[in-house]
Amino acid sequence: MALVNEHYLKLAGAYLFPEVARRVGAFQAQHPEFAEDIVRCGIGDVPGPIVPAVAAAMHEAVDELASIDSFRGYPPSNGYEFLRSAIAAADFRAHGADIHDDEIFVSDGSKGDCGHLLEILGPSNTVGLPDPVYPVYVDTNVMAGRTGEALEHGGYHGLRTLPATAGNGFIPEPPTEPVDIVYLCFPNNPTGSMIDRDRLTAWVDWANEHDALILYDAAYADFIRDPAKPRTIFEIPGARRCAIEFRSFSKHGAFTGVRCGYTVVPKDLEGRTVGGERIPLHRLWSRRWTTRANGVSWPVQRGAAALYSPEGRIQTAAVVERYMEHARLLREGCASLGWATHGGEDAPFIWASSPGCDDSWTFFERILHEARVVVTPGLGFGRLGEGFIRISAFNTRENIDEVVRRLGTLGD
Amino acid sequence: MALVNEHYLKLAGAYLFPEVARRVGAFQAQHPEFAEDIVRCGIGDVPGPIVPAVAAAMHEAVDELASIDSFRGYPPSNGYEFLRSAIAAADFRAHGADIHDDEIFVSDGSKGDCGHLLEILGPSNTVGLPDPVYPVYVDTNVMAGRTGEALEHGGYHGLRTLPATAGNGFIPEPPTEPVDIVYLCFPNNPTGSMIDRDRLTAWVDWANEHDALILYDAAYADFIRDPAKPRTIFEIPGARRCAIEFRSFSKHGAFTGVRCGYTVVPKDLEGRTVGGERIPLHRLWSRRWTTRANGVSWPVQRGAAALYSPEGRIQTAAVVERYMEHARLLREGCASLGWATHGGEDAPFIWASSPGCDDSWTFFERILHEARVVVTPGLGFGRLGEGFIRISAFNTRENIDEVVRRLGTLGD
Repeated sequence: MALVNEHYLKLAGAYLFPEVARRVGAFQAQHPEFAEDIVRCGIGDVPGPIVPAVAAAMHEAVDELASIDSFRGYPPSNGYEFLRSAIAAADFRAHGADIHDDEIFVSDGSKGDCGHLLEILGPSNTVGLPDPVYPVYVDTNVMAGRTGEALEHGGYHGLRTLPATAGNGFIPEPPTEPVDIVYLCFPNNPTGSMIDRDRLTAWVDWANEHDALILYDAAYADFIRDPAKPRTIFEIPGARRCAIEFRSFSKHGAFTGVRCGYTVVPKDLEGRTVGGERIPLHRLWSRRWTTRANGVSWPVQRGAAALYSPEGRIQTAAVVERYMEHARLLREGCASLGWATHGGEDAPFIWASSPGCDDSWTFFERILHEARVVVTPGLGFGRLGEGFIRISAFNTRENIDEVVRRLGTLGD
Repeated sequence: MALVNEHYLKLAGAYLFPEVARRVGAFQAQHPEFAEDIVRCGIGDVPGPIVPAVAAAMHEAVDELASIDSFRGYPPSNGYEFLRSAIAAADFRAHGADIHDDEIFVSDGSKGDCGHLLEILGPSNTVGLPDPVYPVYVDTNVMAGRTGEALEHGGYHGLRTLPATAGNGFIPEPPTEPVDIVYLCFPNNPTGSMIDRDRLTAWVDWANEHDALILYDAAYADFIRDPAKPRTIFEIPGARRCAIEFRSFSKHGAFTGVRCGYTVVPKDLEGRTVGGERIPLHRLWSRRWTTRANGVSWPVQRGAAALYSPEGRIQTAAVVERYMEHARLLREGCASLGWATHGGEDAPFIWASSPGCDDSWTFFERILHEARVVVTPGLGFGRLGEGFIRISAFNTRENIDEVVRRLGTLGD
């Protein structure tokens, strides 16, 4: 009988969001009278819709597929040149980051890329992860065999923790012990923190000095408001030798159901063999895509390119503006309740704790039962998330106003 | 410095189709006067277009995304129920195969699934692969560390070969030595062979007797003409305990640029730990999708479902009919040249050898240079493919007629 990948058996419990969904379902079953009355600020999905420029491009692309003269078959596995060049110009070179078109790899989303990237790295690397953290980074490393067994109170043996606390502004410091791979995410999910140029420079310098690889998740880069903050790690000198960056169209482009994102792997970046040979990671990543995938849907790539058109940029800028106004309303609403409130200035997430409640799931259940609002319990993001909840700004203005109103009635 | 996955470094040469593209590019550079005159029957892409039912559904889906009232965000990671139930009913239960909706996992294509599936299996399984074979099965196993180094004349140490030759009708026999995982592909790529019920039953019985897992690639199932041949391995009693099936919409649905396929993992199927515990593979595969992916694009899933509508079925049946007529023309054309000609009856591929040429790449180059037709050299599919070429029926009728005409002039 075929042997299974036993690393999967180490995974502790269900992935966070299915567990949130299960508890919401249980509440609905228990209170059918409130089943339709729940407002969701949990999973971070967007209310949509896609912007008109994207819809128009996708319609055109479907028409192209429907005619033999304009039909497009297998796409390039790393994405069409028209999309990669639009991305490299607008998201990188316009910000002074020297990234070439062929360093962009278009995919069906950033969550997938985070896991796929581990395929080109050896199993014995040590991994440093912030706490709290996006659970996908943890679980994909468990599945790839880079951890020991689960720890009793969350986390796994073998992972190095990079604490993100109120004390450091929810921005981890470079570790003092050796680590081969570190994950950083800015604007941060879940805490809503945003790193500044000096502290990101310190990370890049540390990585180059210690030969570490930074996996930089900038999925929420479009939500950065402060022009002094770095929009990409590749604005920082030396990052081309130590970093990979993940980006997403999911939130500002309303692409959660369209499915497109990309990863940047600079050609200067190297890994090594156990024997000490230096290997460009770009070469391995290219081979991964050629062999394992057939590229992204034609209408999806046409839609993604439309995000970079003049109309698309104006339309998505308005979307970002709207969500950041929601973030402000949520932040001020939570603060007015006496909660310790973080994030929401350069990120679409609010990270809050209540002096009266130091248990995340209890806090989550109280908000669900008393306000009929779904948030995400901080403990789901790691042990240092205990006591916090994450509230997402991705909702309609009407629902955000209702959430603020309902939270205001908690404990009345 | 981060360690790389050194298994990648064992990969011998470029993946087949990039190498074909490189040689075609070299010919074009050498003969610019013929650059526009090349007919491609190599990679197996389709000329399109998508059928009207699919285009209509995709347009509707884009409109749904463009309105906040009908917007769809994150899809279920295993596919929408409406699509999974259409698939399970039409492709399985209608053929007497007892497959449930929640045993279908919708993905962005079958090539990806073949590689992803290996993630849930342990590294020390022994793998049996037909020769000739779709190169992706080989390369993904190399990348996952299930082989030794490359052999001098193709293949890798550690893989078990299942010969597919004219002697066995290009249908491998079950091995006599122990093997944990075997790949079978019917209708076969590249040889165009199709297994009958008795021989597939022998494989299922062998797998259940020896506790082996069959990875059954039925990407071309819609091209089976003979009603007595099995459309899915799950028509065979006992297959639910030993098989996983991969399916694609790429060819009959013209989905090479749309990107959708699916995998069937029955709940009765188990793997085991080294310690002997039995683990349902459905559970691991579900976890793989929940953690590593965010599902398939809404317009793509709506388009795929339209393939199962009454209009979609009529329209795609006509597409299949057309390609199978092309296969007949190619088969008869090659046979009239005195070539040994196989396939093309229940599969859209012709597998041919010429008495005057026993070297695949020479045969390939001769056809490219003298007829300006791109085929695929059989050696690219394995050592036992030496001397053969694969010709794809996926082209326009006009081009197929031209290919038959040009092949007829070879050696004049």
